Amino acid sequence: MSAGLEAPETSIGTGRRQGAPARRIRVAVVGATGYAGAELVRILARHPAVELVGLAGRGRSAEPVETVHPHLAAARLTISEVTPAADAVFLALPHGVAVERVPAILASGATVIDLGPDFRLRDPADYPRWYGFEHTRPDLLGAAVYGLPELHRAELIALGPRTIRIVGSPGCYATAAILALTPLARAGLLGDVVVDAKSGVSGAGRDTKPEMMFGEVNESVRAYGLGGHRHVAEIEQEIGLAGTSAGADNPGSRGIDFLPHLVPMTRGILAAAHVRPTRPTSQAELDELFTKAYADEPFVSVIADPPATKHVTGSNEARIHVSHDVRTTRILVIAVIDNLVKGAAGQAVQSFNLVHGLPETTGLEQLPLAP
Amino acid sequence: MSAGLEAPETSIGTGRRQGAPARRIRVAVVGATGYAGAELVRILARHPAVELVGLAGRGRSAEPVETVHPHLAAARLTISEVTPAADAVFLALPHGVAVERVPAILASGATVIDLGPDFRLRDPADYPRWYGFEHTRPDLLGAAVYGLPELHRAELIALGPRTIRIVGSPGCYATAAILALTPLARAGLLGDVVVDAKSGVSGAGRDTKPEMMFGEVNESVRAYGLGGHRHVAEIEQEIGLAGTSAGADNPGSRGIDFLPHLVPMTRGILAAAHVRPTRPTSQAELDELFTKAYADEPFVSVIADPPATKHVTGSNEARIHVSHDVRTTRILVIAVIDNLVKGAAGQAVQSFNLVHGLPETTGLEQLPLAP
Amino acid sequence: MSAGLEAPETSIGTGRRQGAPARRIRVAVVGATGYAGAELVRILARHPAVELVGLAGRGRSAEPVETVHPHLAAARLTISEVTPAADAVFLALPHGVAVERVPAILASGATVIDLGPDFRLRDPADYPRWYGFEHTRPDLLGAAVYGLPELHRAELIALGPRTIRIVGSPGCYATAAILALTPLARAGLLGDVVVDAKSGVSGAGRDTKPEMMFGEVNESVRAYGLGGHRHVAEIEQEIGLAGTSAGADNPGSRGIDFLPHLVPMTRGILAAAHVRPTRPTSQAELDELFTKAYADEPFVSVIADPPATKHVTGSNEARIHVSHDVRTTRILVIAVIDNLVKGAAGQAVQSFNLVHGLPETTGLEQLPLAP
Amino acid sequence: MSAGLEAPETSIGTGRRQGAPARRIRVAVVGATGYAGAELVRILARHPAVELVGLAGRGRSAEPVETVHPHLAAARLTISEVTPAADAVFLALPHGVAVERVPAILASGATVIDLGPDFRLRDPADYPRWYGFEHTRPDLLGAAVYGLPELHRAELIALGPRTIRIVGSPGCYATAAILALTPLARAGLLGDVVVDAKSGVSGAGRDTKPEMMFGEVNESVRAYGLGGHRHVAEIEQEIGLAGTSAGADNPGSRGIDFLPHLVPMTRGILAAAHVRPTRPTSQAELDELFTKAYADEPFVSVIADPPATKHVTGSNEARIHVSHDVRTTRILVIAVIDNLVKGAAGQAVQSFNLVHGLPETTGLEQLPLAP
Repeated sequence: MSAGLEAPETSIGTGRRQGAPARRIRVAVVGATGYAGAELVRILARHPAVELVGLAGRGRSAEPVETVHPHLAAARLTISEVTPAADAVFLALPHGVAVERVPAILASGATVIDLGPDFRLRDPADYPRWYGFEHTRPDLLGAAVYGLPELHRAELIALGPRTIRIVGSPGCYATAAILALTPLARAGLLGDVVVDAKSGVSGAGRDTKPEMMFGEVNESVRAYGLGGHRHVAEIEQEIGLAGTSAGADNPGSRGIDFLPHLVPMTRGILAAAHVRPTRPTSQAELDELFTKAYADEPFVSVIADPPATKHVTGSNEARIHVSHDVRTTRILVIAVIDNLVKGAAGQAVQSFNLVHGLPETTGLEQLPLAP
Repeated sequence: MSAGLEAPETSIGTGRRQGAPARRIRVAVVGATGYAGAELVRILARHPAVELVGLAGRGRSAEPVETVHPHLAAARLTISEVTPAADAVFLALPHGVAVERVPAILASGATVIDLGPDFRLRDPADYPRWYGFEHTRPDLLGAAVYGLPELHRAELIALGPRTIRIVGSPGCYATAAILALTPLARAGLLGDVVVDAKSGVSGAGRDTKPEMMFGEVNESVRAYGLGGHRHVAEIEQEIGLAGTSAGADNPGSRGIDFLPHLVPMTRGILAAAHVRPTRPTSQAELDELFTKAYADEPFVSVIADPPATKHVTGSNEARIHVSHDVRTTRILVIAVIDNLVKGAAGQAVQSFNLVHGLPETTGLEQLPLAP
Repeated sequence: MSAGLEAPETSIGTGRRQGAPARRIRVAVVGATGYAGAELVRILARHPAVELVGLAGRGRSAEPVETVHPHLAAARLTISEVTPAADAVFLALPHGVAVERVPAILASGATVIDLGPDFRLRDPADYPRWYGFEHTRPDLLGAAVYGLPELHRAELIALGPRTIRIVGSPGCYATAAILALTPLARAGLLGDVVVDAKSGVSGAGRDTKPEMMFGEVNESVRAYGLGGHRHVAEIEQEIGLAGTSAGADNPGSRGIDFLPHLVPMTRGILAAAHVRPTRPTSQAELDELFTKAYADEPFVSVIADPPATKHVTGSNEARIHVSHDVRTTRILVIAVIDNLVKGAAGQAVQSFNLVHGLPETTGLEQLPLAP
Repeated sequence: MSAGLEAPETSIGTGRRQGAPARRIRVAVVGATGYAGAELVRILARHPAVELVGLAGRGRSAEPVETVHPHLAAARLTISEVTPAADAVFLALPHGVAVERVPAILASGATVIDLGPDFRLRDPADYPRWYGFEHTRPDLLGAAVYGLPELHRAELIALGPRTIRIVGSPGCYATAAILALTPLARAGLLGDVVVDAKSGVSGAGRDTKPEMMFGEVNESVRAYGLGGHRHVAEIEQEIGLAGTSAGADNPGSRGIDFLPHLVPMTRGILAAAHVRPTRPTSQAELDELFTKAYADEPFVSVIADPPATKHVTGSNEARIHVSHDVRTTRILVIAVIDNLVKGAAGQAVQSFNLVHGLPETTGLEQLPLAP
């Protein structure tokens, strides 16, 4: 953790003199009233290289943050409609809304880290198809980096010196699924792919909906998003990319079968990827593939026992287990994350750290909270 | 429910005269201290054609049932080590234990309804393979009927007049999976099959285990039984049978990929069957297959929306949803049951009703308990 | 249970001839879209002496009941805006709404069982004080009976032959608190009284509220209703009555200190009554008081160990534990019920049975559902 | 939080030179296999002034900590039977065990912070009475400080330079109750006191017990510890002390009526203190009493709305709400804490910080985790 305690050596655009006290990076959060927004505040308010200069929430005028998020009272922050000048702006907004806000933020010279989907997909045609809206700034999609550091670290670091800096931070399901499938994609092993995922309710956001009432969710499991959850778009995009970048041939052309479930818990995603391999493989090969793929990753562990979501709650960790079923000859990969941390706010901060030249783990060293 | 209020017209072995008051069928439960045992008591104590003559539990001597199951106090029953003479005996015992008890029960002329696996599998070789013990009475396996009325109703009814009457009542996961897959198996549609299931903790029984403590289970999801849960044996047996009985060709020769998960709830199983069809199909074909398959079933509904486990809690219902993903061309079948009712005690009573000539729904009319 | 299986010997207003098949009592539920309404349907649809002739819900026109309550599909009922002619009408409506509907129902000759507060309180002045509305038919308050059979059985039975039949069915907290306190009130033992209660969320109804979302309720406990929950009015009314009817002196003149809590579960209420006795007492005296008070009650048990709410889930049972703390000389009474059954729908049916001359337990014999 | 980022200016026994890099304080945890032990590791492994030199657990020999606590893998620590030399030793051991280990630790010159009860009570006679064992080192009780910084800060700081340094860290219920009652005790307002508390299951520890299985705890509330929970001893001790130290007269001589409940959640305690005041009071007086009492406390907030346990999860915060019921003239105080943090490990670290001359909040700045 010691790295996290040191002042950042550089911060974009500060040009501070050698020996002078480090200026903290000024950060704003727009869309701070939802669960992802709250989680950004939780992390950023304790980030040693960040000065949290503003929280913006629709219809709020300088209220203490605890009127919206009672648990964050100790952060001693206010939330208002105005977004102050900042070096970096995190957006936690509904799809289609962020893209309208981004040009002005870019014009101010700030980095944009968008936790919504508006800058995740490369192909503008995917927006009407998966999200039902026409992207109004397709020219910016090429400038954005998909903020999954385990796949795009170099690009995120390379964003630092640019004048246009946009990070499209991944969806929660997508993070789990992509981390589970990438080593197989790179090895050209992806045949038929079924990803069966289970999530706590916080992934559905904080909006009041009848089906999210305690009385409906408790003591119940149900599937939803049949016929194509939106996160499929980014999973297929990234798995395809991953496969291509390794020069492998990926015959999973019929698309990923992705099925999410709502389970009676608040946080956590478990994604089980059932894969029919394109050729015979073995536990030894799989172990090596995964261990190598994530050997140097600060937040991804390949573990010997099937993971539980509880073991990563509140942290930016992802845990992955891979096994080869000799009876059925299929591959099973299980990945768990905290959907609000590695699946949202934590991952966004991880990308922010890379873009702003900070040690990648800064502000994210907190251990999981269990039991 | 009116059927359930009438005295049974016949009860095996009573030979009562026409017009005489119906004698209730004397029933005993052996292994009444676990969750399945408790659920048998809950149902049988209110079954209008049953006299619950004895509850047997290891090391118990005439204690009130509420010392073991506080919620059952109103049943005013006692639990002891002795199993009384009965017309039918339900066994809720660990695997390998039931088979030792059955010969004596059969000798007494009673029906055996075994909720464990000892009489589910046809092939004796499956016992050492899946359960790790040599079956000591393979001669009885052929006499037993797999107690899934939706597949074996005629055989269950035919058991009635026989002198050897054994029902091997299905496992909870198996019930959900088989009901989900049978219409597809019969139509020869089963290609690659992945069954990804989610269960509440009561399926793991009442034994005290560290991993079943509230602090470990709550706010967590995890997979278990990787590499082959035991219920696979009966699923493959029945799906194979189902396919064969319809004369269809089932190329699912590589076996079913079955993965169970533990979710933080007490009751309920949701099984999601992801199926690569052997030939092109359509939503219309699937709807017809399923609707027809279960049209006359009192406890199985094919429904238009994805089901939640909560909607069947405490009842013997199974709810099934089938959908065809035009994008990936796969079939998705989702089935939910209450693992302790349709997945255990309720289903056992359903079979008992059939064997003993009662209306199939007797004692099982209770509506689900929600929220 | 056998009582419940027999056809009712009499039903109000049917005048059926001796020997003719019993006509079922025609029952309607108004306000069937909420949790209490659903629970009425669950019970009444399986009540052997009831024909459920209509379910009324605002803005519904002949929809299957499962569009509102998916778990009730097997009841094969529809819900619409029209209330049909019936022998008895259960009302599960917001306070102030029921009173407007009642005159027309009474005019039709039907019994009214109101699950809301509009007919619970004797003193019209209590309505503006506790509920914020002027009671528009104070003349009817005297005709109504407070539907707690353990206190008002004779009055409920006496309602049967009358032309105006109104039952004001108790609140959930009130039921638990009154059953806990009545034996002490009758014995003149009530000094300072603190009732600290814990409830599952279903008591708050089915309306969508931010504070009832799973993400807010789960893993949390909070108190609410500080400074006077509305149920205090009926608790004080009934405890006062109970005390007076036994001729005892109740010095608890400063009022009951009642504090409800929301706990992360769906069903169940536990009320802990901490009582400073007006004179020295003993465990033996308390045991005798409580055992005697509830000896003949079909739904109330006085038990030796502190009860858990789970042990009565889905049933009409109340369980009560009383203890005397020799160190502090205080009395502690703990009562548990299922808030939707004994605290709402079950109790309403219990009163209905009494008013309509049925065995009190008819349709309510179901054992609790655990685990 | 900046305080927590600086190196400690002094650490007991290091005698480091001015300007030299701060040596971290070497800390060991004995009893690291339970929930409190895990929580100590979670906090201390990220404490900027601490070097966690050893984790001791019975029967463990140099295993990675994640074999016991999977969530703590990222701490990269091992757990073994040997306790290394350390500047401070945290004990999370069963009562009666710690006292046997303490003399050797004291002899080594290390600070002892005991999370169990062995050093909480002043009167040796309280041990056989409340805990059922004779204290073998009553001579050490006088040297120990009750580790509730809000009441004993000066004594904790004064421990620093001593050679015998023992902190008896408070129980979880006691922490909540004492913080709720102290301002009233100091003002001489405590008449009859009822403390009705609700706790998540983690307070019962990690031992495998039938009544702590998920299937038993979920969807249920129950009271326990009737007739005197052990924490009453320290509550009465501290409230008495608090009252005396302010020169007030406390007529609560009949003892505190304390009733704990188990609710279906993992973390969190809510204590509701119902107090009959000794004299008339008002909301204004109460507000002033509480606000003043905790104005300078870094971890205690007096808040305007009733608190939820979820709002402090994972943090060292206590939140308190006080209200005066004008109808009943009683005082209600509600306090919430995370039982494993402010109720155990966090509070122990808070005391450790004071004893070792560190800023009190060091390592405890983490914001609560919600939803």
